[in-house]
Amino acid sequence: MKVGSLNRGGRDGTLIVVSSDLTRAVRVTDVQTLQEALDHWKDVSSVLRSLYRQLNQGLANDSFPLNLKELASPLPRAYQWADGSAYLNHVELVRKARGAELPDNLRTDPLIYQGGSDGFLGPFDPIPVASEDWGIDFEAEVAVITDDVPMGVTVGEASEHIKFVMLVNDVSLRNLIPNELAKGFGFFQGKPASAFSPVAVSPEELGTAWDGRKLNLSLSTWFNGKLFGNPDAGVDMAFDFPSLIAHAAKTRSLAAGSIIGSGTVSNRDRSRGCSCIAERRMIEIIEQKTPSTPFMRFGDRVHIEMLDPEGRSIFGAIDQQVIKYEKL
Amino acid sequence: MKVGSLNRGGRDGTLIVVSSDLTRAVRVTDVQTLQEALDHWKDVSSVLRSLYRQLNQGLANDSFPLNLKELASPLPRAYQWADGSAYLNHVELVRKARGAELPDNLRTDPLIYQGGSDGFLGPFDPIPVASEDWGIDFEAEVAVITDDVPMGVTVGEASEHIKFVMLVNDVSLRNLIPNELAKGFGFFQGKPASAFSPVAVSPEELGTAWDGRKLNLSLSTWFNGKLFGNPDAGVDMAFDFPSLIAHAAKTRSLAAGSIIGSGTVSNRDRSRGCSCIAERRMIEIIEQKTPSTPFMRFGDRVHIEMLDPEGRSIFGAIDQQVIKYEKL
Repeated sequence: MKVGSLNRGGRDGTLIVVSSDLTRAVRVTDVQTLQEALDHWKDVSSVLRSLYRQLNQGLANDSFPLNLKELASPLPRAYQWADGSAYLNHVELVRKARGAELPDNLRTDPLIYQGGSDGFLGPFDPIPVASEDWGIDFEAEVAVITDDVPMGVTVGEASEHIKFVMLVNDVSLRNLIPNELAKGFGFFQGKPASAFSPVAVSPEELGTAWDGRKLNLSLSTWFNGKLFGNPDAGVDMAFDFPSLIAHAAKTRSLAAGSIIGSGTVSNRDRSRGCSCIAERRMIEIIEQKTPSTPFMRFGDRVHIEMLDPEGRSIFGAIDQQVIKYEKL
Repeated sequence: MKVGSLNRGGRDGTLIVVSSDLTRAVRVTDVQTLQEALDHWKDVSSVLRSLYRQLNQGLANDSFPLNLKELASPLPRAYQWADGSAYLNHVELVRKARGAELPDNLRTDPLIYQGGSDGFLGPFDPIPVASEDWGIDFEAEVAVITDDVPMGVTVGEASEHIKFVMLVNDVSLRNLIPNELAKGFGFFQGKPASAFSPVAVSPEELGTAWDGRKLNLSLSTWFNGKLFGNPDAGVDMAFDFPSLIAHAAKTRSLAAGSIIGSGTVSNRDRSRGCSCIAERRMIEIIEQKTPSTPFMRFGDRVHIEMLDPEGRSIFGAIDQQVIKYEKL
């Protein structure tokens, strides 16, 4: 099934079920928001599934043509956003770029950071930043939404807690990060609000592309209209989603509506390009001694999308332009 | 005014207004939860204030005797929990204890970490931990709840966004933290669910003890029935709450219901004791070369409370026992 949140009706938007081809939608009468649906997943999921079936068959009452631009992030705000860094090629390149050490246990102990979740940008919202000097970057990722995950969940059990998959633009302010990480408490100012794809998709809807652990499709990123990268999200992912969830739930439970991210998708095959500017800059330094791709400037645009093997958009696109933030 | 959340009625509990002496309460008919009140603060705050006045005068309809043990944390889950580390005496001692460097800009750049907020323990809930080997510790802190804070808020503007003050037990797993911080992404497994005082109190209700920037009263921590520390929360706080809020909001807005913590309250005056075990152990190492106070074991109990100058509990107590977590 596919769901989204209209960007009206309150801070959590209005839950809709979206047709497989993303052209039509129908409101859900039983619950108002996606968070509410996840809070009562056992009671609500069959209602959503049934609506989805009817919508795709053209049988849903009160369905309407969908304009994806009217959608917020599927969870416009969330109680938990924990972002992994599961593609080690990205970790290695970006840490080299900022002169940071690689952790000894890089291959056995997942990297994951606690992200801010109190307000996400919508998939078409501008990215407001006060200064170009902060090193504005995008990061194209895959993320999952869980139901209630008990503390101590095993990797084997974690897969069944994944209720939806979606895309993320995890905006990063590269020039604020080194000082922040040097303090030892992780990211804060370096990670402003992220944006998610307009539509969240249940695992079974992804068919064979979803193997219960990762999403085996290419994730495409365009920067100012030019393809910047299209790495395969199923390749070089050292820690799959169940591993990331089990890591996050080692000492505490995760509440329904928790979002767990993959980290920047990155393949060792350099012909696949990059999902963030920092990585490309590091490759330029390695190959040409100096970076030639600048970070984002006001007016620059990033477009993130994933197509199915038939070329159809699965989640809708994230399409965002950086603008100068002016305080009112 | 004072508010709390009955631990029933849903995941966010049921908002109540609590009498000044914490003995009586009344439900709020206009909104169901504290988050909802904060989401609509401009419309709701006067209703709450008026109810609070009536309750204290014995004029509130349907008021009832309050058992504090029926309360969850004021926000049983939140969209944002950002915890500072504003008492540098704590930072210096704890970093010494784990052999970590002190940041160069310790005195000019606030330390703050993004905490997990998807589920808080109630003030009387047991603290479930799977292993005593993880180095179970409490941290007694003060925290504030904000309304909507715009990105780029100044220190001068930030104070007016503080709507409530409360106490926190920021549970820490000391033996998991060094490896976690070495990876560079901050805390995750080392910070399981925190608990907050049963009651949140508006700044004006705190009278002269609240100076718009910090809370000038002693915070008492008892460990297994013995006073462990009672430092003054208004002393040695290098970064006040408006400074922490401005730091947190430098690159993004903070949504209504954001919780900002002070970090472990700690005075340089050693006669005031400690608000966490790690600090006391470091002092023992400095004074006696080896620590003699063990971290918490299953069955150990911590009690955190703040009294007004007349000896009355302001927020109610946090009183928690560590238990062994057994996965179902």
